[in-house]
Amino acid sequence: MEEFKVTPWNVEGEVDYEKLIKQFGVKKLDVSLLKRFEKIVGELHVFLRRGVFFAHRDFDKIIDDLENGKRIYLYTGRGPSGPMHIGHILPFYFTKWLQDKLDVNVYIQITDDEKFLVKKKLSIGDMDKYSMDNILDIAAVGFDPDKTFIFRDTEYIKNMYRLAIRLARKITLSTFKAVFGFENSSNVGIVFYPVLQMIPCFFEKNRVLIPAAIDQDPYWRIQRDLAESFGYLKSTQIHAKFLPSLLGPAGKMSASKPESAIFLSDDPETVKKKIFKYAFSGGQPTVELHRKLGGNPDIDVSFQWLYMFFEPDDKKIKKIEEGYRSGKLLTGELKQVLIDKLSEFLEEHQKRRKKIENKINKFMYDGKLASEMWSKTF
Amino acid sequence: MEEFKVTPWNVEGEVDYEKLIKQFGVKKLDVSLLKRFEKIVGELHVFLRRGVFFAHRDFDKIIDDLENGKRIYLYTGRGPSGPMHIGHILPFYFTKWLQDKLDVNVYIQITDDEKFLVKKKLSIGDMDKYSMDNILDIAAVGFDPDKTFIFRDTEYIKNMYRLAIRLARKITLSTFKAVFGFENSSNVGIVFYPVLQMIPCFFEKNRVLIPAAIDQDPYWRIQRDLAESFGYLKSTQIHAKFLPSLLGPAGKMSASKPESAIFLSDDPETVKKKIFKYAFSGGQPTVELHRKLGGNPDIDVSFQWLYMFFEPDDKKIKKIEEGYRSGKLLTGELKQVLIDKLSEFLEEHQKRRKKIENKINKFMYDGKLASEMWSKTF
Repeated sequence: MEEFKVTPWNVEGEVDYEKLIKQFGVKKLDVSLLKRFEKIVGELHVFLRRGVFFAHRDFDKIIDDLENGKRIYLYTGRGPSGPMHIGHILPFYFTKWLQDKLDVNVYIQITDDEKFLVKKKLSIGDMDKYSMDNILDIAAVGFDPDKTFIFRDTEYIKNMYRLAIRLARKITLSTFKAVFGFENSSNVGIVFYPVLQMIPCFFEKNRVLIPAAIDQDPYWRIQRDLAESFGYLKSTQIHAKFLPSLLGPAGKMSASKPESAIFLSDDPETVKKKIFKYAFSGGQPTVELHRKLGGNPDIDVSFQWLYMFFEPDDKKIKKIEEGYRSGKLLTGELKQVLIDKLSEFLEEHQKRRKKIENKINKFMYDGKLASEMWSKTF
Repeated sequence: MEEFKVTPWNVEGEVDYEKLIKQFGVKKLDVSLLKRFEKIVGELHVFLRRGVFFAHRDFDKIIDDLENGKRIYLYTGRGPSGPMHIGHILPFYFTKWLQDKLDVNVYIQITDDEKFLVKKKLSIGDMDKYSMDNILDIAAVGFDPDKTFIFRDTEYIKNMYRLAIRLARKITLSTFKAVFGFENSSNVGIVFYPVLQMIPCFFEKNRVLIPAAIDQDPYWRIQRDLAESFGYLKSTQIHAKFLPSLLGPAGKMSASKPESAIFLSDDPETVKKKIFKYAFSGGQPTVELHRKLGGNPDIDVSFQWLYMFFEPDDKKIKKIEEGYRSGKLLTGELKQVLIDKLSEFLEEHQKRRKKIENKINKFMYDGKLASEMWSKTF
């Protein structure tokens, strides 16, 4: 019996990441690999130090390539079904960090078609609106505009479709049914769509590294089966955990449950309200008990968010953890630490988003990499 | 038990067109309809007079529209899996005649993706080669370059894909499995493809008439189910019979059996050889017997070709028929009549093809209709 289920379109139950590693057949991101990577880039991102990125496929080959001076490239993406929350943007901040450290091309696929096909209530107008909204948030992360190509499937399809039919001819419906759980009641668009999500793994002859949440892994499995017969390298991945829902460590943030998430557009007042009202606490019912028994940071969402993302300073996070566990730091105080960090982060993100608005075409159409990509057909 | 089977990718056995009308749920093209149409256009094409186009869906509504001065448009297509033969070009000559008579837009879809997806041995290079080759043959038919748009799916996909996902979201795999006979062993490209073949039925708000061989009917059934919910009219069709194989009246010409077909690129010598060697004859084994018993034009492929396409003159074809039936006209003589007609037809077609070569961009990219179409997204 499975207590949880992870597919690209659905995450149910409390995810046991150790079990997921076995289920998916991926490898744990271990210390020796991280040390080798640290040697190359000089430091480790908080996501690597704290196990947010926890598993991989062939990340060792990426390290080999880098050690041997070979070029690699990065690919990640976003399904624009609504406004983006903190959990959505996490892999992008990491990808930008990788771009800074490695000076490599980044391809960001906006899978507008996918979201339209799976969300029956999403209109084509919503799809357009959320695509552009999300693209601004992604560009605001701070990617290099001449080394980053952000594209929408519905626009870039012409450049991808020839390769898509070449791949599609080699994949049976049975395979996709088994890997993605499609049924005969699935629509005829979504059963073709996964092919398009594999295409960016063929954008360069160099090896690709895909930093993404682990639910996306099924796509890469199939790409890895096909790649070499097309004269390309198997894609490699590092897989992230989900940033937990405000409502508790078991769930994933969901755009359809606004109280479960902090959105990138939330103002400081909203952030404060949501954290105080909803953030699941590992503290005791009363101050007295908390002082006496201490809180449990392992299940406290505010602590988890600080640990995973918002307090990268190892000394400071240790102090917070110890304070909370001992009962010295109260839940309200812990929440305030998160609120301050979050508000600062959002303010800066929102400022960058404003600034990038009139430069968005560089990422999409006329920056160096974008121009190159529009002149190519795969 | 069925003695024949007709799908868009396969025609097996001797087609009983009366039964097919019932199987497909289409209507017979009857005299009263043809008379109304004759009133509008002034005359009836040989294909209409001789039952080559024999069935329809809502052709009466096209006639209503024309009688009421409403605009209609034409749509047909070609899957470029090899060089074109006489049977392939038949609906195009008819469509050109309709364009001349009605002064309407014609959209010609080159389903290069479809053919690549269903023919495992077709390389992407073959697909390109046959696409351009076939497009030249189609343009050579003599369409109006400013009112005709010839496009390849792999190129025009960007302009069609948004509408494609809107349609696809409303169609289940079950429906396509039932209508097209897809199985779990089908590839994931071909199960999406039929959506694209419906898109040209949404190119204009006017009613569309599709002249095509009857094997294509399944596509239009689904378009007709969806059209009105998208604010468009149901597509209408007139369905053609297959021009019989040289090898006998039961089969369909096949590009993979060169002796079954006359290709548009065949020279007079080849035509002569093929007709004399392969054209299935309704004559008697010896001249003596033939003179005595007469031939059977109903099963004689040379006669059928003359009747269906190459001898539009009603008096002349009657004379040939009577002569053959009575035994006055020998098989060799009948074949010579076809050879002369065919060679003349091919010579003219090939001349027009040469002339059109440097004008092909008008049909594909920069003629009046083509430019309009490239500026539109559906």
